[in-house]
Amino acid sequence: MDLLKQGWFSELNDLWPGMSLSLEVQEVLHKEKSQFQDIMVLQTKSHGKALILDGIIQCTESDEFAYQEMISFLPLCCHPSPKRVLIVGGGDGGVAREVAKHPDVEKIDQVEIDERVIEVSKKYLPSMAVGFSHPKLSLHVEDGFKFMQQHEQAFDVVITDSSDPVGPAVSLFQESYFSLMKRALKPGGIVCSQGGTTWANPEHVAQTLSHCKATFPAAAYGFASVPTYPTGQIGFVIGSLNEETNFKEPVRIFSEEELESMQMRYYNADIHRAAFILPRFAQKILSSETHISDRNNNPGDVA
Amino acid sequence: MDLLKQGWFSELNDLWPGMSLSLEVQEVLHKEKSQFQDIMVLQTKSHGKALILDGIIQCTESDEFAYQEMISFLPLCCHPSPKRVLIVGGGDGGVAREVAKHPDVEKIDQVEIDERVIEVSKKYLPSMAVGFSHPKLSLHVEDGFKFMQQHEQAFDVVITDSSDPVGPAVSLFQESYFSLMKRALKPGGIVCSQGGTTWANPEHVAQTLSHCKATFPAAAYGFASVPTYPTGQIGFVIGSLNEETNFKEPVRIFSEEELESMQMRYYNADIHRAAFILPRFAQKILSSETHISDRNNNPGDVA
Repeated sequence: MDLLKQGWFSELNDLWPGMSLSLEVQEVLHKEKSQFQDIMVLQTKSHGKALILDGIIQCTESDEFAYQEMISFLPLCCHPSPKRVLIVGGGDGGVAREVAKHPDVEKIDQVEIDERVIEVSKKYLPSMAVGFSHPKLSLHVEDGFKFMQQHEQAFDVVITDSSDPVGPAVSLFQESYFSLMKRALKPGGIVCSQGGTTWANPEHVAQTLSHCKATFPAAAYGFASVPTYPTGQIGFVIGSLNEETNFKEPVRIFSEEELESMQMRYYNADIHRAAFILPRFAQKILSSETHISDRNNNPGDVA
Repeated sequence: MDLLKQGWFSELNDLWPGMSLSLEVQEVLHKEKSQFQDIMVLQTKSHGKALILDGIIQCTESDEFAYQEMISFLPLCCHPSPKRVLIVGGGDGGVAREVAKHPDVEKIDQVEIDERVIEVSKKYLPSMAVGFSHPKLSLHVEDGFKFMQQHEQAFDVVITDSSDPVGPAVSLFQESYFSLMKRALKPGGIVCSQGGTTWANPEHVAQTLSHCKATFPAAAYGFASVPTYPTGQIGFVIGSLNEETNFKEPVRIFSEEELESMQMRYYNADIHRAAFILPRFAQKILSSETHISDRNNNPGDVA
């Protein structure tokens, strides 16, 4: 299935067995092996540039806005006053770009482990890496897990924009990471992590959500449509120190005029509410806390 | 990109240029050229059996329920008393299976042009083709467009479960077809057609919706997540003869107990409401009626 020589990039991974999305490639713009992972930037034929880490599509210019807006504004709009924000991961700069749009945000810290992802994004993905040049941002190149250990009651919102739970991001899906995030939050703080999809990985979503529920008095799972991610969507696990937080109802609602001036292409308050409405099969998977190990199959697995 | 010999089926079409979903194949169960189209049934490795028409995935056993439930229950639950239902297309039987679940439905007519799709589905996809054996159903093997011409004020709901606007289904996306459906409806009747996605084909969606709006006093576009369709979702264009129909608010709301006994895996009233909540870029595409020809690009096209 290595089609690169035939003009197509195909994404294959054991996390979504038996299916593969391919993008037609005009040019391989960049390819390197960093200290942490394989980094590739493709000029695709129909989806703009694509950033690939360890063979997995992280973002394409055609649909990255959906992911970046949602992982940022779901938590930001559930917090009454998100002044201090921490971004873990997010080496392409897209989440920083979005978080900086929120008028209440005063200071953003971002910790990304792989400096090469940042540099490559600055060179090839300027529409995302523009986030790095925002005056609100302080960028730290180090391990997110370790960074979190050094901070206590420091942030209103922590956003974890990680790759999937293989490779350098594994520790960011563990319960110990949720405990560290809890410690790093100010009172009433909110966390939001990339959380996989209930179509391809119900067991991972259920496990990540159960870690979040075990750590935070309020927790939920929402999702957004992103065509170039496996199964065409991506989910978010979100938790709050305030047990009264109702994630389905944003406390900050931007007007159409504000959303327009913020150049929002996906998010608004209605989309926020709808993100937490799950199909019945997904509701069932996530509402039962037990037998996680029994849920290792595709929801529609008929084999 | 013909990978069948390497154990993968890849879906390529000009309707979604530059991207392709591939499914790993265990066995090609059936392959024929009918009078109307190429028909193939694959035993996939992780998605059950898949029905392929003219190289396009029509359904897989892993996620067909999402599509069949939504194209059926969005219109059925917007109608106060859907007794007579017409299904156009739907040769796999899945829509008939779903429509027959609605307790108000007394009689279902289904018109499918390709008898071979019906026969192949009966042999290889019995969990869908079970719809054909329901006592409420009368099956007609003929052209849906012509069938519609012969019926006037006959149906409460018309569901058009067609393939994409290439090949035998082209006429089902034209304004003349919407006019015929209008004539075939009883007062207060509702239509629902497969309508493509705003990610891959904003211009087609906008055009189909504009035909519906030109014909019916109330019209809307909703969508559902279906991982094995291009961009991971599929849309529905829905219209009503009753100008007061609010598609976002179902008039028939089934209880959890009813949904459970109906074996619903995707649909409930909340999912119904959320189906009509569109991201900002899609809202904009569908709210402006003009310059359809200017919208021939991917929403995120950055080329």
